[in-house]
Amino acid sequence: MPCEFKYTKRVEFYETDLAGIMHFSNFFRYMEIAEHAFVRSLGFSIHQEFDGVKTGWPRVHVECDFFKPLQYEDEVEIHLQVAEKKQKALSYKFTFRKLTDGTPRETIAVGRSTAVCVGFNQQGKIAGAIPIPAAFADRIQQAPPE
Amino acid sequence: MPCEFKYTKRVEFYETDLAGIMHFSNFFRYMEIAEHAFVRSLGFSIHQEFDGVKTGWPRVHVECDFFKPLQYEDEVEIHLQVAEKKQKALSYKFTFRKLTDGTPRETIAVGRSTAVCVGFNQQGKIAGAIPIPAAFADRIQQAPPE
Amino acid sequence: MPCEFKYTKRVEFYETDLAGIMHFSNFFRYMEIAEHAFVRSLGFSIHQEFDGVKTGWPRVHVECDFFKPLQYEDEVEIHLQVAEKKQKALSYKFTFRKLTDGTPRETIAVGRSTAVCVGFNQQGKIAGAIPIPAAFADRIQQAPPE
Amino acid sequence: MPCEFKYTKRVEFYETDLAGIMHFSNFFRYMEIAEHAFVRSLGFSIHQEFDGVKTGWPRVHVECDFFKPLQYEDEVEIHLQVAEKKQKALSYKFTFRKLTDGTPRETIAVGRSTAVCVGFNQQGKIAGAIPIPAAFADRIQQAPPE
Repeated sequence: MPCEFKYTKRVEFYETDLAGIMHFSNFFRYMEIAEHAFVRSLGFSIHQEFDGVKTGWPRVHVECDFFKPLQYEDEVEIHLQVAEKKQKALSYKFTFRKLTDGTPRETIAVGRSTAVCVGFNQQGKIAGAIPIPAAFADRIQQAPPE
Repeated sequence: MPCEFKYTKRVEFYETDLAGIMHFSNFFRYMEIAEHAFVRSLGFSIHQEFDGVKTGWPRVHVECDFFKPLQYEDEVEIHLQVAEKKQKALSYKFTFRKLTDGTPRETIAVGRSTAVCVGFNQQGKIAGAIPIPAAFADRIQQAPPE
Repeated sequence: MPCEFKYTKRVEFYETDLAGIMHFSNFFRYMEIAEHAFVRSLGFSIHQEFDGVKTGWPRVHVECDFFKPLQYEDEVEIHLQVAEKKQKALSYKFTFRKLTDGTPRETIAVGRSTAVCVGFNQQGKIAGAIPIPAAFADRIQQAPPE
Repeated sequence: MPCEFKYTKRVEFYETDLAGIMHFSNFFRYMEIAEHAFVRSLGFSIHQEFDGVKTGWPRVHVECDFFKPLQYEDEVEIHLQVAEKKQKALSYKFTFRKLTDGTPRETIAVGRSTAVCVGFNQQGKIAGAIPIPAAFADRIQQAPPE
């Protein structure tokens, strides 16, 4: 059962700022890209119905520690790990490693994200936290402690 | 009846790129900000129901000519003009002028945008182009030729 | 000596996502907008030279707790407080409150950010952490504990 | 000699807006991604020195016609064609086609972009338009008329 996932992405021009490096807010977008690709790799979508109920994953906490900058055209591996799997919430850890000669080496940043599984009502409003749908929960497990 | 609107905005750090200037894609976001503020100034929202029908304004064409760059912390006036008012579509012209000592002077860019008024069905899908709701159409007019 | 600052901003259409709410990554952009407006209110810029040395403020840590979503056209007050002032680093706390009838009420999110003051060399590369320039440091103070 | 290039990208969650579709401004970012990947495929970078002169490509005109929306997780092929190659400027045409079962079918949008080749002076300011460096110009050609 997967507890991790790796996704590689190149830094685009529009993601940089005048300091010549990737703007820090984009690290959170990269975390989301990796998370959604992970969910997709399991055959699901972050934006789908389970048993007729539309579900979503609003984040309740995110954070990131930055060690080194990323520059235009750098390639970075986002290493997602399932940090904590609870009944109604999931926490991920994301380790960003810059590729040198195609190999992830230098650690650039480490991020964390916690999202709660919610169901939407007929009006499209959040109706409250719900248990992670079993079909999805049964496919993932917590990563072993490092 | 209004045919124009002015909105002033400051260039934010995250809107710049490594060339040290505002990324060109943000000019289109500024056009949208000005357009939505214009609609709001008339007492409406771009995202509302008219006579029980949810309406929207998908763009069918946008363009921009760039003459000078904008830099971090520059203030720019976006001068919106109603370029063409048709039964089911609206075209705007946007003139970007950089403020110097609080006064808009240098023309930075000129953009154009055409959007079609559409109605959504119960499933939230576009059901087709509809006449611009009278309540809104009656409040705006085409700008005189320059 | 200022230890806090308030900035009000409206949620723009392009800042929302298909869940109908402001995308979480934009909270970090709002923090930056408020921080830079704070620095500007003191007569400085985040992007300037002090005593001939170009300085910058790379972030080393940011985080945000989300309590409620923001929606299109919501107005939100970003209340910045100087959480910690060290010799070479500054930490801010940001409290997001949604405006109702023009008054900030509901707390939407609370963010934190720590940035280090660095100097750039002639090649435009970061040359290392430096003490916060006195001209700026002397203008701000840590907020009293809450 | 290449006159075209194809790049496939998936629509990310943060690129959508509350209308449930990709925000139109992102089409311009996709054009840039494809353009830069094209340049990279030829062994160059949009951000490099030629004969000791730092060059750049500020856009002077961009536009896009939108026919159909893109939705979250859609895959789209951006088909770049060299529309016009002049001494100091390049124009590209971009055709966006949505993938169905891995094959690009429906045309979603068609964009155009014209950029001028400029040199930067020692202070990092644009010193004026320059002929496209031969090393790069000799690698590309105008696409045949359609």
